[in-house]
This record gives sequence, C-alpha cells and structure tokens, in this order.
Amino acid sequence: MRRGVRPAGPGEITYASYLRLGDILSAQKPESARLGVEAHDEMLFIVVHQTYELWFRQILHELDRVQDDLASEPVEDSHLARVVHSLGRVREILKLGVAQVDVLETMTPQDFLDFRGLLSTSSGFQSLQFRLIETRLGLESSRRLLFEGKPVDADFSEPERAALREAERRPSLRDQLEAWLMRTPFVTGEAYAFREAYREAVVAMLKRDRQTAEAHGETEEAAAIAEAARAFAAIFDPRSHGEWTMDPRSVEAALFITVYRDRPVCHMPHALLAALMDIDEAMALWRHRHALLVERTIGLRPGTGGSSGQDYLARTARQHRVFPDLFRLSTYLIPRADLPPIPPRIERRMGFVYAAEGG
Amino acid sequence: MRRGVRPAGPGEITYASYLRLGDILSAQKPESARLGVEAHDEMLFIVVHQTYELWFRQILHELDRVQDDLASEPVEDSHLARVVHSLGRVREILKLGVAQVDVLETMTPQDFLDFRGLLSTSSGFQSLQFRLIETRLGLESSRRLLFEGKPVDADFSEPERAALREAERRPSLRDQLEAWLMRTPFVTGEAYAFREAYREAVVAMLKRDRQTAEAHGETEEAAAIAEAARAFAAIFDPRSHGEWTMDPRSVEAALFITVYRDRPVCHMPHALLAALMDIDEAMALWRHRHALLVERTIGLRPGTGGSSGQDYLARTARQHRVFPDLFRLSTYLIPRADLPPIPPRIERRMGFVYAAEGG
Amino acid sequence: MRRGVRPAGPGEITYASYLRLGDILSAQKPESARLGVEAHDEMLFIVVHQTYELWFRQILHELDRVQDDLASEPVEDSHLARVVHSLGRVREILKLGVAQVDVLETMTPQDFLDFRGLLSTSSGFQSLQFRLIETRLGLESSRRLLFEGKPVDADFSEPERAALREAERRPSLRDQLEAWLMRTPFVTGEAYAFREAYREAVVAMLKRDRQTAEAHGETEEAAAIAEAARAFAAIFDPRSHGEWTMDPRSVEAALFITVYRDRPVCHMPHALLAALMDIDEAMALWRHRHALLVERTIGLRPGTGGSSGQDYLARTARQHRVFPDLFRLSTYLIPRADLPPIPPRIERRMGFVYAAEGG
Amino acid sequence: MRRGVRPAGPGEITYASYLRLGDILSAQKPESARLGVEAHDEMLFIVVHQTYELWFRQILHELDRVQDDLASEPVEDSHLARVVHSLGRVREILKLGVAQVDVLETMTPQDFLDFRGLLSTSSGFQSLQFRLIETRLGLESSRRLLFEGKPVDADFSEPERAALREAERRPSLRDQLEAWLMRTPFVTGEAYAFREAYREAVVAMLKRDRQTAEAHGETEEAAAIAEAARAFAAIFDPRSHGEWTMDPRSVEAALFITVYRDRPVCHMPHALLAALMDIDEAMALWRHRHALLVERTIGLRPGTGGSSGQDYLARTARQHRVFPDLFRLSTYLIPRADLPPIPPRIERRMGFVYAAEGG
Repeated sequence: MRRGVRPAGPGEITYASYLRLGDILSAQKPESARLGVEAHDEMLFIVVHQTYELWFRQILHELDRVQDDLASEPVEDSHLARVVHSLGRVREILKLGVAQVDVLETMTPQDFLDFRGLLSTSSGFQSLQFRLIETRLGLESSRRLLFEGKPVDADFSEPERAALREAERRPSLRDQLEAWLMRTPFVTGEAYAFREAYREAVVAMLKRDRQTAEAHGETEEAAAIAEAARAFAAIFDPRSHGEWTMDPRSVEAALFITVYRDRPVCHMPHALLAALMDIDEAMALWRHRHALLVERTIGLRPGTGGSSGQDYLARTARQHRVFPDLFRLSTYLIPRADLPPIPPRIERRMGFVYAAEGG
Repeated sequence: MRRGVRPAGPGEITYASYLRLGDILSAQKPESARLGVEAHDEMLFIVVHQTYELWFRQILHELDRVQDDLASEPVEDSHLARVVHSLGRVREILKLGVAQVDVLETMTPQDFLDFRGLLSTSSGFQSLQFRLIETRLGLESSRRLLFEGKPVDADFSEPERAALREAERRPSLRDQLEAWLMRTPFVTGEAYAFREAYREAVVAMLKRDRQTAEAHGETEEAAAIAEAARAFAAIFDPRSHGEWTMDPRSVEAALFITVYRDRPVCHMPHALLAALMDIDEAMALWRHRHALLVERTIGLRPGTGGSSGQDYLARTARQHRVFPDLFRLSTYLIPRADLPPIPPRIERRMGFVYAAEGG
Repeated sequence: MRRGVRPAGPGEITYASYLRLGDILSAQKPESARLGVEAHDEMLFIVVHQTYELWFRQILHELDRVQDDLASEPVEDSHLARVVHSLGRVREILKLGVAQVDVLETMTPQDFLDFRGLLSTSSGFQSLQFRLIETRLGLESSRRLLFEGKPVDADFSEPERAALREAERRPSLRDQLEAWLMRTPFVTGEAYAFREAYREAVVAMLKRDRQTAEAHGETEEAAAIAEAARAFAAIFDPRSHGEWTMDPRSVEAALFITVYRDRPVCHMPHALLAALMDIDEAMALWRHRHALLVERTIGLRPGTGGSSGQDYLARTARQHRVFPDLFRLSTYLIPRADLPPIPPRIERRMGFVYAAEGG
Repeated sequence: MRRGVRPAGPGEITYASYLRLGDILSAQKPESARLGVEAHDEMLFIVVHQTYELWFRQILHELDRVQDDLASEPVEDSHLARVVHSLGRVREILKLGVAQVDVLETMTPQDFLDFRGLLSTSSGFQSLQFRLIETRLGLESSRRLLFEGKPVDADFSEPERAALREAERRPSLRDQLEAWLMRTPFVTGEAYAFREAYREAVVAMLKRDRQTAEAHGETEEAAAIAEAARAFAAIFDPRSHGEWTMDPRSVEAALFITVYRDRPVCHMPHALLAALMDIDEAMALWRHRHALLVERTIGLRPGTGGSSGQDYLARTARQHRVFPDLFRLSTYLIPRADLPPIPPRIERRMGFVYAAEGG
C-alpha cells in the first residue's frame, strides 16, 4: 500500500525524464521530411516499427530471466512458476503484435508508395532483435530459410552478426527444455518405466479396437488401426526417431506431463509446455498476418504467386517452428480411460508434502 | 491419435444432425417479417442475442463442474487445476463477449428504430441465464440494484423466478471460495500464525519508513505513513472489519497465497484467485461496453444524464462486483524484502514430496 | 426515441419467446451424455460450432441484401453505402470468428479425446452454410481443392448438394463486382481513355527512373526497371492477361478507383474494394488459425508434415482466395506525383451537383 | 510496384539507423537498476508507457492533418475522405491501446511493489501528449475534473504548461466540427427548412401514436408519448437548449446527415460523425480499463470506494466525453417511415454530377 521511501537521489524524476521521452519522441525522422517530399504515412511506418522493437526488447528481457532460471540444475520449483509467468507475458506481447497489424493496415498501398522508394534497402528483415528472439527460442541458423537466396543476416553489420553468433553459441530455450525434460523425475527409474507402461496400454487399446472393427466387418477402420500401431511403435523405438527433433527421453517426459497433467507435480510443467506451444503458435500467426499485409500493401511479384517478402514470410510460418514435437504429441495421446495407472508409490510422490502427511 | 471405435448407434450422425442445425437455424423469427415490416437488422439483433445465450449456457456448464469440485472438503489437489482451467475458459468467453459488441455496434440507431417498436417489453434484462451466472458467482439478490425501481426479475415468469431462487439457495462460488480459503493449511496452526508474523513485518516496515521520513523532514510523508499504519491495523482486527466482505480468516489466507505464490503449494491457489479477479474484471468491462452501446444506439433520456438502461448498466459495472476483497488485497501488500520469513518446517511442507525426499 | 406503438398481437412477446430460447438452449445433445461417457468438453465443442453456424447465418443474410443491391443495373448510388456497410459487418463477424478460436483452444487434445471417437464421420467440413458463403463470394467449385481426394460436398446430403448447386448457378459477388466495375463511368469514354493515360504515365516514369539509374551506374536497378516495364506492359495488353482473373476492363476500373479514391465519386467504390479485400484477408486468417488449432488439438499424421485436416486448411488459406486481383493491383500502382492528371471536364463530373453549382 | 530511385544521400540508411534504434532501445533506464534493487518488471512498466507515448505521437500527427483539412472553408470534398481515414486510424490505435492493457496486467501488484516506491511522484497523469490529445479533441480545461483537488497540469513543467495553453488557444476538433456542421448545405436555405419539416413529421407521428394508444386504453403509453413530445419540442427551440453542447444549427445539421446518410452527399459526413463517436467511445473504454487496472494493481484507498487514481479515471470515463451531442442524437431519431420527404430539387443536389447528367 505504501510506496516506501525513495532513497535520496540527485533530483526528482518526472514522468518525462523517467521514460526518456526526449529521446523517444524525437527519434522519428521521416526520410520524406528530410528530402522535402510529402508522405504523411511515413510517420506511422516509423512508429509501428519502433513499437515492435520496444516489444522485442521486452521479450528479450523476459527470455533473459527465463533462460537463467532454466539454466540451473535442477530448476528450482519456486522458479518454475515465474518461468511460466514470463512466457505467458511473451504470448500476450505476441498477441498484441498480431493485433497491431490492424493499425498498420490503415496504410494503403498508394500511401506507402509516397515514401517506399526512399527507404533504400532498409527492411524489416534487418531487425536484429527479432532474429535474436528466433535464435534464443531455438531456431538454428542451419534451419533458417534463405531470403532471396541469401542468409537473413546478409545485410547485418558485423557487430550485429557477432551478437547473433553469440546467441547461437549459447543453449536455446529449446535446448533447455529438452535437457529439463530429460531430468523429469518419475519417467524412468529403477521401479517404474513410464515408456513400457504406456506402450502396453497402447498395444492393448489398439488390439481391442482392431478386434471390435473386425467383428463389425469394418476393414477400412482395421487398416487404419494397423497403421496407427506402426506409428506408435516408432515413438517407442529410439532407432526410428526420424520425425522428432528432441531426444526420445524428452518426448517421453513431455508425454508423461501431458497425460498426468492433473497431478500437482505436473501442474507447472504442463503449463510450461502449453506456454511454449502458445508462443510457437503466436509466432506462426504473426508471420501469416504479416505475409497477408505485405501482399496487400506491396502486391505480388508479376508472374509469380507472391512477392519475395510475402512468399518468404508465408514459408517461415510453416517452417520456422521451434517446438513441433509438442504439437506432434497430440497425435500419440490415447483416451483417458485407456491410460496406464500410476503405481501408488509413484502417485504419492507426485503430490504435496502436506497432503502426504495428511495435512 | 485414434478416434476409437464408436459404439453401434441407431444411425450415422452427421454434422447437421449432431449440432441440431435444423432447430438452431430456424429459430430466427423476426417480428418485422411476421408483421411485413422491412427491418434488415433485426436478424443481427436476434443472432447476437442467441449467441450470447449459447455462451451463457457454456459458462453455466463450466460453473457446474467448478462448483462440484469446490463442494468437496477438502478440495482434491488434482481437481484444483481443472477448476482453474474452467475459470480460464469462462474468462475467454467473457472476453469474446466484450469483443462481440463490435459486431452489434454495426447496427446504427436508425436501423434499430426499424424494429425497436415491435419488441414490446421484451428486453435483454430478462435473460435468466445471465442472472443465474451472476447469482452463482455470488451476487446476492439483496445487493442487486433496482432497475426502474423494480427488482430485475420483475418481468420473469414464475418458473424463471423459481430457478433463480433455487440458485440463490445454494452456496455461490464466492461462498465456496470463502470456505476453501478458511481451510487453507499453514495460515494458522499450533506452531505458526501468519497473521502475527505479517503484522509484525508491517509494523517494523512502517516504523523504519516513518523514521526515515522524519529524519529527512518529510512531514507529509510521515503523516501518510501514520494513516497507512491505521489502515493496516484494521485488517488485523476482526472487530473493525467493515470494508471486507469475507471472513477475516479468508482474507488472511488470500493474503498468504498472494505473497507466497511462488511456493509450489500456492501455485494453483494463486492461479485460482487471479482467475476470479479476471472474471470479475471481464464482467465489469462487459457492463461498461454494454452501457456505451446502449447510449450510442438508444440515446440518453431527455433531461437526464442517461437512459434508464444505460444508467443501470453503468452502475452495475461499479456495484455488481463479486470479488472486491481480492482487488482490495493489493492495498495491503508490502515489498518482497519486507515480507516475514516462513519458518523452515512450514516452508518444507509447502513443497513436493519428491523434493522433500531429495528427488 | 419512442418505440412506436406495436400492432396488437396474439400475446406479449418476452425475451425468451422472441429468441426461441427453448429451441436454442435445448439443442445441445452431447453424444457422450447419450452414451453415458464422461466428456465435459463436448458441450464446448457443440456450443462453439453452433455459434459459428449462427454467425454464418448472419453472413448469408447480409449477402442476400448485398447481392440484391448489386444485381440492379446501374447500382443505385444510395444503395452502395449500405452494401459497404453490410460487408463491413461481415468483416467484423469474421474477425470475431478468428477471435473465437481463443475459446476453442482451451480444449486440450486429451479433453478432445474424451469424445472424439464418438463423433463418427461428422466433421466441420460438412458445414453447408460455410460452403454457401464461399460459393456466393465467388469460389467456383472447379477451383476448390479436394479433401482427401474427394470434393468437399462428398458427405453432403442430396438436399444440401442441391442448395450448393443452386448457389453456384447464380452470379457470385465476384461476378457482380466484375460486372459493376465494367460499368464504371469515366474509365473509358469517347473523350477520355484512362488506360492510355496511365500507360503513358508509367512509361514516362520508368524511362526517367532508368535514365537516373544508368547515370549513377546502377545496373542492377536498371535491370529491375526493365523487368517492371515488361510487367506493366502485360496489364495493358488484353492478350497477355494470364495472371488476372477478372476482365481487363474491370481491372482498369479498379485501378482507376484506387488511384483516384479521394474524388467524391470514388469514395464508396473505394470503400467497397477495401471491404472485399478485408473479407478475403479475414477468411484467409481464419483458415490459418483453424489449421494451427487442428494441428494443436489433433496433431499431425505420422510420417507426414500435417494431418489431412490441418494440411487442407493451410492449403485453402493460400488457394481459396476470391479477390486476388484486388491484392495484385498494389503491384501496379505508381507514386502519386507520377499519376496522370484527370481532364478538367472529367474531374468536374466526379464531384457533387451542389459543388458543381458552386454551392 | 517500383520503389523509384532514391535521391543520392550521404550514405545508405539501414533498418537500425532509419528507426534510430540506438536511441529507442537505450532509453529504458530502470530506477531499480540504478539503485541496485531487483525489480524484473520495471522494464515492462517502462516499455508499456513508452509504446503508449509513441502511439500518442502518432495520434497527434493524424490530428495535425485532420485539423488542417478542417480549417479550410469550405472543407474540400476531396479532403473529407482522408479526414475520415485518419480518424479511423486513430480509432484503431485507441483499440490497440485498450488491448495493450492485457500485457500490463501480467504485472502483479507484488511485482509492482518491487519498484513502485522508486518512482517518486512520477505518474502517468503527467503525460503531456495525452493531455494535448484531450485538448485538441475538444476537452476544455474548464471541464476537466480535478485530480486530488488540483488541476491535472499541476505537476507539469512550465514549457509543458505552455504547450497545453497553446493547444487550448487554437480551435479544437470539436470546435471545427461545430463550424463545419453549421455550414452544411441543404439544412437551411431559402427554399427548404429541414428543421420545420422534421418538426412537423415528429408532431404528426406522436399525434398518431397518442391516438392509437388512447384508442387501446394504454394510458401509461400515452403519458410517455406526451413526455416525448415535450422533449422533442426542446430540440427545436433554441432558447431551451440546455442539454446540448453545440449550437442548435450544428445539431440540426448532424441530425440531417444522420437521417439522410444514404444520399451520396451524406456518405462521408456520416462516416465522419461515426468516426468521432468511435473515438469518444474508445477513449471512454480505455479510461474504464485503466481504472480497473489501477484498482487491481494498486488497490483501493482504505476506507473509500477507490484509490484516488482509480476513482479519477472512472469519473473521467463518464465526464471527459467530447462529443456527447452525437450520442444524444439517437434519442431524437424517428422511424424511417415517418421521416419527412426531401423536396426533389434538393434531393437532386445531394447526388453526383454524373448522375444528374444521366450518366
């Protein structure tokens, strides 16, 4: 309730001095104004991109803490909640970023033409902060699509490229997720192997379903079940791990957390997985909307189905995903009634101390 | 991954039969069409209200499970996550309800006049489901504002009134929250009284702040601190409990959960409190937007500052709040550095079994 | 302000009777309830789809009036504003439809599995109303992508297929747009050919730019200008009209409206073109979001990059566009300063009578 | 399609140099960092406010052109569309500003306490740009509510106060609207007095309604009609103009535009009135959401129903409205069927030249 007493400082801060509004509000320098050309909408173009960059700054600030917290082994239980909280904030920022396109879309193609020629080769693809976010989430440079045949950092300055390389050297959030999942208690252990229990449950379920299908003469259904059995087999066989990007043990742990999400010990881990999917999805939506905006404002390259920018964005929406394994997990879920039971001694360890003590 | 095999039924269901689209899509009966008057926008008016009612149905469905789960004593830890999940869904529905006003606002006042006279005394204030939601959340009928001098159910049919009375007889979500909070472990107990510890921390903090203020000759600040001390004293004194609507023990438990939210045992309880505030806030926003819509579409009553509907809605936004205590709690928080430490034996009981076992 | 006096009727209508809440709120029949299976989220699944269908109903209602208004020759100036207004409402509904995915996404894959197997072959792809909207906007059945190798209406009942064929027989909104554009005054006429004037302006602009580029030794830029010149030539040559879907005269009229949008006579036509692009874009966004939702909830087909539903939706987002020509126009705009002047006698006819009279 | 050739400059601009990212991204200076206190969320607090200020800058940029365009007499028809376009952009920015609260709300009260005491007297109420927006829209300083008994500019620096006074000296958008409405052609003129025609239509309608009501013995209805007649009389009587803030002639013109909005000459004027209402409403919603946010994050002042900030914001949402007359107009509309016909010679002048010529 109280603001506390502020330590004595060199002078009272005001709203304007605290926010450095002098710097912030004098940083809009339209090229059109410099060159004496009339282009009312260049201000909007600048302000929209500056707000995006401020939000990127905030996302990187959240990733700083998230990655620090996930770097400790083990991750402290009391830190997991704030990791989830920070990622939830990142998702809200990304949703706002998608909504912000509504404002930029009030700039018509004709209005953009008033100053588009003045921008030279400057382009949103040169946003270092956005590339850093992608990299720190886990988009390896080897997976990045080329833009007009060149790597996206082709137009970066040397200090910018160095910053990107430095980010690539450090473990990404995806790397940290994988390592953290591998350390998940319960999944494997001397006395309980979740993988085996789940595999048996799947086999039993598919066998029962196939028999039911055959009994009803549903041959198409029976064939589908056989195909499903083969697909399931692959996730339990580390050698045929082709379509997963994470280690099989991490995939198993994520599966465990997903199917037993209602146990207290899985609450925050499940929220963490959901938050990462939210972020991956929000990034994809942002790329889709951005591609549509580019198509609308700049048009399509004559004779092709897209402009280079529009086309690149649409392809990154499909291929620059960071957590595809988490989405793919849905494919391997089975109905609740068919889930394998957890051994009681494991179940007990998934709850709270106070509950175990009968509190 | 597999759809499972559906038990044999009387016939294949289709999209249209499953959703009862025959009933749903033939339920738009504009009065204007019946009377041969042209009023294009009456369809919109009907569809908007029907979708609202469908969403209200879903909210009541969520409240069914939430209230069942909270009715058990103690509430099972494994149920708390789904309570929070359901309330999160209710919040998303309410946010959609606010956004939906964008669609209704495309109806201009002149277009509304085309059929407004045909609606007789029929009014959105007669939505039974909305009243049930309010009641089940915890809005007691004694606290309801009168609408044009009459209780809101004045125009209800007898069966509708009976349904509302039945809902009022049962414990509301607010009642359940209060009872659940009172049962929170840790807050009181033979060996640890959170109330005392927090009170001492507050007293120490305020004393230090006042001395600092006096040392700097800041008399205004010192006076403010003295006022804060009196306010704090009130929350620890059950006799002067005037401005709280919940029992002091529930308030203390909510305070405990809020300040120690990072401990595992508080994760879901804290998420529950946040979800209830989200809902209270979303309802208030919906009322505000609705009031502005009414003002815009119907106008203001001549000679007054509002129409009866607009004015009523604006007042309910302020006074039909259900969880004011949770908002008020913010007033009584103190900086993290000043929080009282938790005794180690209590701290340990706020974690997981696996962690306590050194897992 | 006054409601008017309602003609005497057979009995007072109430909120519930007016909205047919009896029918609407008893139309949720979960298969899980019928079969005695517990599946809390099936209610959400039903309600979400029913609200979508109600909104589709409203969109079709708007298209009814829009298409009636556009069917008259010439379209009355006083009707054009309400055509734009109706299309703006459709856009708001589609935006709400995109936002509504937020609610459906609160259903996790595991919760969906509780009843997914009970839905048989029933699927959202069987929404007749959605197919009617696509058809009436202008998606010809010949351009529709196949779903799992079959046309989308493969699972439709015969009456549903008949309704779809009937819709296909009538002129679509896209057909009407094309015809209306061809009738645009000013574009061609004995005394003014916009096409020639624009072509000359483009040629002059490109020549000047090329000379500047060459003077600065910018050979890459000069080559790009030469390519641009070829592309521009194509839009003015009816024989090489490959990438446009509309008649060249319609394209020219749309270009005319776009570049002279500030003249009074172009205000509403320009708003109409913008509204159609908004709708096309909102449909694409909805398909993208839907594809991501399906991927998240159902997962991807083992061994492929997508499930059949997810993949189909993602492809329709790219290929089921209705007004690509309007987006493509942006490619052929030139800066305002290079636009050809309008002859004064034409300019005068693009304003209001009162202004021409000096009012 | 072409970018044009950029005039030779002192060096290539890049994305980072164009957007002044060096200045923008180094302007986040948390007090907590300076004082060595840990307060993760202070960055969010700063970034949120900086983005708001950037958007305020953009709104002021739009108001610059809007007010320039409206300052000419008469306003050029070709400028009206861009006035409406700019105001539509302002509305989108304000909607984004409301949505942005979602991000700020991820900061919990406890997290705010980490640095709240360090902010000294700095407060969002000191935003000069926001006060300028209010003033330029038309909120006179005499109508501003006091904040804690002081005018809102009490904490402003002298240059800031001077800027505000300068803005107050110039005609506001509301002043310009009023003047522009007074100049509306058609409303009065030697040969057509809209006021008289509308008054007669109202009198005839009410007389007919009252007779119908009396014939059916509906005395309550008849009394309501009599009250309506008195209210209507007031708007036609300049002497009893108490509840309007604009000149009676402006009110009449706004009424004329509203009821004849489908005539071409009223299209843009009607869109202008709607855009102004959108802005007034969006500002009110932003204030409401802001008040709820403050209540949630800071709490309520002990012993009162609000904190000073929360309470002030809630009151401004009601009382700092700029275009109440436009909302009030709805009260005085009558059904389309009762509207007075426009004399043919006036009707003709409300269309386009090309149409008048039989084009």
